[in-house]
Amino acid sequence: MVLVLRGELRLTAGKAAVQVAHAAVLLSEEAVRRHLQWLEAWRAGGAKKIALVVPTLEELEALRRRAVAKGILNIVVQDAGLTEVPPGTKTCLGLGPAPSSELDPITGSLPLL
Amino acid sequence: MVLVLRGELRLTAGKAAVQVAHAAVLLSEEAVRRHLQWLEAWRAGGAKKIALVVPTLEELEALRRRAVAKGILNIVVQDAGLTEVPPGTKTCLGLGPAPSSELDPITGSLPLL
Repeated sequence: MVLVLRGELRLTAGKAAVQVAHAAVLLSEEAVRRHLQWLEAWRAGGAKKIALVVPTLEELEALRRRAVAKGILNIVVQDAGLTEVPPGTKTCLGLGPAPSSELDPITGSLPLL
Repeated sequence: MVLVLRGELRLTAGKAAVQVAHAAVLLSEEAVRRHLQWLEAWRAGGAKKIALVVPTLEELEALRRRAVAKGILNIVVQDAGLTEVPPGTKTCLGLGPAPSSELDPITGSLPLL
């Protein structure tokens, strides 16, 4: 599972962590319904997660399109905007769970959060 | 849902976010089995999460004991230790989902991550 934050938002560590957690929970719920086999393989491997960063919303959306084209589960977190960003701001793209062989080609070059 | 990190570990933002996400996923899975009513109320309210920090492991464990005494779902994330901390290090305590009236008395004074 890969969680990708927008670096340009310059979220605090706590706000960033919560966006990543929102994405991870939503993906694991969705995977129960749509990708149970990959979910179980991911859990058996220790439920690995990695937090990465893209500089802009445009790159976040381009990344999402590549995930959609590959059939990888994907969700975008929109923040309620009570604190650091305006309501509805897209903060984080979550991808997976999926095998590394599916995720690495589209996220392998992104820097760590 | 409250996710509490150990400040003394001085994790990077990315590593901290992943620990918080591990805790959130484990709690939401456990809540399906053991606290469905609180889970559904939490989802209906926007699945709020907050990331806080305690200075030491001792305080993390004391906080967990208070949660146990109140019947609040709780999990401790132990990191596989491949990167920033030794294997098995307890990194994060997850609490909830539970009503604010249950969580605030035990976590309300902790600083944000």
